[in-house]
Amino acid sequence: MAQVKRDAFPFDKSRLEANLISKFFYAPAFEIYGGIAGLYDYGPPGAALQANIINEWRKHFIIEEMMLELDTTIMTPCADSKTGEVLRADHLVGGVLEARLAGDKEARGQEALPKDDAADKKKKKKATKTKAVKLEDSVVAEYERILAQLDNYSGPELGELCRKYKITNPDTDNEVSEPQEFNLMFASSIGPTGKNPGYLRPETAQGHFMNFNRMYNYVNRKLPFASAQIGRSFRNEISPRAGLLRVREFTMAEIEHFVDPLDKRHARFEDVKDVELDLLDRHVQEAGATTVKRMSIGDAVANGTVANETLGYFLARIHLFLVKIGINPKRLRFRQHMGNEMAHYATDCWDAEIENSNGWTECVGCADRAAYDLSVHSKKTGAPMTAFEQLETPIVYEKDEPILNKKVLGKTFGKDLRTIQTIVEELDDANVQKLKGELAQGAATIVSPTGQEFKLTPDLLTFERKTIKESVREFTPNVIEPSFGLGRILYCLLEHTFWSRESDAERVVFSLPPVVAPTKVLIVPLSTKKFDHIVRDVSLKLRKGGVHSSVDDSSQSIGRRYARNDALGTPYGVTIDFASLQKGTMTLRERDTCDQLIGPIDEVIAVVTELVQGTIDWDEALTRLPRYDGVQAID
Amino acid sequence: MAQVKRDAFPFDKSRLEANLISKFFYAPAFEIYGGIAGLYDYGPPGAALQANIINEWRKHFIIEEMMLELDTTIMTPCADSKTGEVLRADHLVGGVLEARLAGDKEARGQEALPKDDAADKKKKKKATKTKAVKLEDSVVAEYERILAQLDNYSGPELGELCRKYKITNPDTDNEVSEPQEFNLMFASSIGPTGKNPGYLRPETAQGHFMNFNRMYNYVNRKLPFASAQIGRSFRNEISPRAGLLRVREFTMAEIEHFVDPLDKRHARFEDVKDVELDLLDRHVQEAGATTVKRMSIGDAVANGTVANETLGYFLARIHLFLVKIGINPKRLRFRQHMGNEMAHYATDCWDAEIENSNGWTECVGCADRAAYDLSVHSKKTGAPMTAFEQLETPIVYEKDEPILNKKVLGKTFGKDLRTIQTIVEELDDANVQKLKGELAQGAATIVSPTGQEFKLTPDLLTFERKTIKESVREFTPNVIEPSFGLGRILYCLLEHTFWSRESDAERVVFSLPPVVAPTKVLIVPLSTKKFDHIVRDVSLKLRKGGVHSSVDDSSQSIGRRYARNDALGTPYGVTIDFASLQKGTMTLRERDTCDQLIGPIDEVIAVVTELVQGTIDWDEALTRLPRYDGVQAID
Repeated sequence: MAQVKRDAFPFDKSRLEANLISKFFYAPAFEIYGGIAGLYDYGPPGAALQANIINEWRKHFIIEEMMLELDTTIMTPCADSKTGEVLRADHLVGGVLEARLAGDKEARGQEALPKDDAADKKKKKKATKTKAVKLEDSVVAEYERILAQLDNYSGPELGELCRKYKITNPDTDNEVSEPQEFNLMFASSIGPTGKNPGYLRPETAQGHFMNFNRMYNYVNRKLPFASAQIGRSFRNEISPRAGLLRVREFTMAEIEHFVDPLDKRHARFEDVKDVELDLLDRHVQEAGATTVKRMSIGDAVANGTVANETLGYFLARIHLFLVKIGINPKRLRFRQHMGNEMAHYATDCWDAEIENSNGWTECVGCADRAAYDLSVHSKKTGAPMTAFEQLETPIVYEKDEPILNKKVLGKTFGKDLRTIQTIVEELDDANVQKLKGELAQGAATIVSPTGQEFKLTPDLLTFERKTIKESVREFTPNVIEPSFGLGRILYCLLEHTFWSRESDAERVVFSLPPVVAPTKVLIVPLSTKKFDHIVRDVSLKLRKGGVHSSVDDSSQSIGRRYARNDALGTPYGVTIDFASLQKGTMTLRERDTCDQLIGPIDEVIAVVTELVQGTIDWDEALTRLPRYDGVQAID
Repeated sequence: MAQVKRDAFPFDKSRLEANLISKFFYAPAFEIYGGIAGLYDYGPPGAALQANIINEWRKHFIIEEMMLELDTTIMTPCADSKTGEVLRADHLVGGVLEARLAGDKEARGQEALPKDDAADKKKKKKATKTKAVKLEDSVVAEYERILAQLDNYSGPELGELCRKYKITNPDTDNEVSEPQEFNLMFASSIGPTGKNPGYLRPETAQGHFMNFNRMYNYVNRKLPFASAQIGRSFRNEISPRAGLLRVREFTMAEIEHFVDPLDKRHARFEDVKDVELDLLDRHVQEAGATTVKRMSIGDAVANGTVANETLGYFLARIHLFLVKIGINPKRLRFRQHMGNEMAHYATDCWDAEIENSNGWTECVGCADRAAYDLSVHSKKTGAPMTAFEQLETPIVYEKDEPILNKKVLGKTFGKDLRTIQTIVEELDDANVQKLKGELAQGAATIVSPTGQEFKLTPDLLTFERKTIKESVREFTPNVIEPSFGLGRILYCLLEHTFWSRESDAERVVFSLPPVVAPTKVLIVPLSTKKFDHIVRDVSLKLRKGGVHSSVDDSSQSIGRRYARNDALGTPYGVTIDFASLQKGTMTLRERDTCDQLIGPIDEVIAVVTELVQGTIDWDEALTRLPRYDGVQAID
């Protein structure tokens, strides 16, 4: 009923924005100081709406699924590699490729490029070692093409280049981690010296991974388990715009669901398998289309559209959550990341996008990030971050183990022995077999990640056949990560629920569901003094029932007071007047329809409490209390 | 009963700390990266305990008193004066005093001090203007004494010096605001240019004041009202220590109660007037003692120990809150700030101090900060931050208004006319009368804040008698500010509730009240598979009753499982065994006494739900269910 009225009214964004500011849902922060882009303060209705959304999120995810809630720090020390050194990805790639080109020129007997200006020197500071190694002509051309457009590469693209061209930290030869968009982080420094750089977390995820071992012990070393965290994160956006959709400080709610990579089924998938979603898969997008397919999540997992049950389970749960708090399901879709936008390590990734006046906006990301995060933290710190499975039947198998003749190798290769050892230790079984085959033919060449080649002969490397018996399987858990931008959801929700009355465009309404509405019940006494004791009594009884109410005892007309609270999204109102004094009755008004019912005060309280708790809806309330058509009908 | 056992056991801090870390109440953040002082991550029990404390705080303060909840930004742009410039208080004081000494030397015909080293130059950069003004010898001595020990002054002391010696910003002559401990703030910069310095808020208070006008409108322009905010704040402590008691990132809960300075009564003071507090007033401390006086807050306000009803009301409410969540009232006192430690603008200030193994620690501050904060923000921005009272009877009075003869003044004083105008405009009535009297005698001298003197004669300044009629009283509200350090409270609570069983010191217990305990009920099935359906059923029924439970279905003995959860502070446990299958019964165990009761499953659920909701206590539970003395008695 209310829905019909709402859809009939054209969306008026300037009216929405004026109302959000004037009712202090939120407002630009530091406005009296001239304001600053991308920072917003939430006032009483906005803060309450956000708190209610968080509360519902906590119930829907944390309590329902017995997740481990964390509260980790926002301030983050820079600790970006084994040495704690931070490299700028563009400088690193530029420096290394230039050094290789210089080495190529040297090998070709040409003069190296002159190191001309200061900016260039700066870029090259990570690449002092030039080795005379000749490159293929095609490789030279490729390097030059990359250098010419280095500024155009995004972080993930630079990471891709590091992997493709085996670019490591030239000072340590250590592999570099995936580039972080460090320039989007707020930098600071920790402690009085200024020597410990820090930054503000751009998401809460790191706090989960860093504490994996503690949590794994907390759950008695059983998988799967999930951690959850709700908290502030920061991104130093270059030019924030679009209100709450792109801000510099925001509240996120993130889940990390840790799971055995060999078993991504979900115990409660059965409960959600019939939930229908609008899916925009990667194939449709790659064909240039945006047509969603409506599909049950059960079918989507069964036919391979969604990678696995756990990922599918969370997509369905995200859908249910968003719809429960009032997002219009017709304006909600799940868009799969295409190959070129997904991180290289991710198995599958979907965004819940909500349509609003700015288009379709990503509000929740849900990715199967495989073992990436735990592996990276483990590699950086040397701390094992693995799970164990006690095998009922031990696995027994045979394996060739390479044995290096270190004495001879040391004599031949000097300090490169170490590099050779590392290369050989990191070979997987297939490569061990390949190497063994080559050596059987007389000789084999191995290559370090930096391109150094070593020729080995059978006297330097032998193989020993060993029987391995494993009774415990050790593995790095995979992680499914649903990540919610609460401010974006809140803004879309305000857009989806906003409309004006046909009778008067100035009379705006937010049809927020009671579960998230900032105030559930408005108490409106006819005049200020005479009804004070009834107001107090009603207010107390509602509070005891867990219903958040507020009193508007201003001198304005009852109609005007209701109108003001329609614009705050308050779903129910009760009027206390002379009939309350004389007959002990109270009227109950519904925000969207303006229907009014009447009944004994305690009965009205009972009905409104059930309405707020969601155990009955308005249609059922209509059967519980008679309609009121008295003189104070106000719409 | 449990209380007796607890007190009998000596407090063992190393055991407490070991348990806090091993159970992951909290742990040093970034530990796998080597950790960083003053940053802690809260794990599942710590995060839940904190969430429950916050939840209770929200009920006790925000909901109970209908406060306006805000959620404002952590990132704060630097906007520290009219020009947005930030001055370092020690540099400012040093620079100005040195410039004055140099001017004195110049006036005395001596050579100015040589500006010797770079460090000195840096300190002096704010004081380039040297004016040849001779100083009294005693003043010279005083300035030199101050300069000699400049590094020893605290922020408030530097502020005091600025006021005493009328030190203003030398570039603008603008008055400087009270020094902020800026070196304790985490600095950053906002946006891509690096030109907009920012810092992380050291408390949440600024967000309240900045939004005063919006909130005043939100409450329909009525006083008193209060705002509240719970959120993260940051202080870049130089050497954080003492665990959660001094950290660099922490959660605060702050209230700003805005009140008419002429009426600091509180409508609900009557409700708390009999609450007895241990008060350590300033007179006792100034006499060198620490003896608390036990006094009802009604008496304390009546006899002037506590400045006013509103401040007293909050002291009592703070006491009630802390005791409700489990702080030992015998280890809680309220200490008044002494004259020399209280900010100059504050009317009265008390700290709730909680005794713990580090001594008495300030955990809540409660100050009447008068009109200071709103005045400062209003002065800095030019935005009026006032409230209005419609007077029933307009106030009519007569007043002498000074009239400057600008034409003649301009000729005599040139561009100093402006300064003279400002001085005269800012005179209060008493000073206007004084000036009028002096001029009647022939001449008068007025002094600018920087010490410039102007001699006025009756032709330059006359007075006009005016009748003023005020029907609206405009005033700057005063603010009472209760400010809670939640991490400190949480830590003290863990200390106060920690003990070990007499039978075995390894069996540690946190006797956390059910209202804040991380988990309320532990469900312990005898063996893993057979009882699954009963476990699910009990768990679901508890959740429906709003009771947070967890299941421990590990293979360890029931006694060991209970012991593990005593160390997590779980107040109740229910055991599901063969009797549950055969007779439909379940046992109920209380954490502190290890008492066990038995009853039909639904009855046990009903009793434990009431226990958790606080509607009955354990003594009453003993009358509702029979004791269980079966073979599985576990203590």
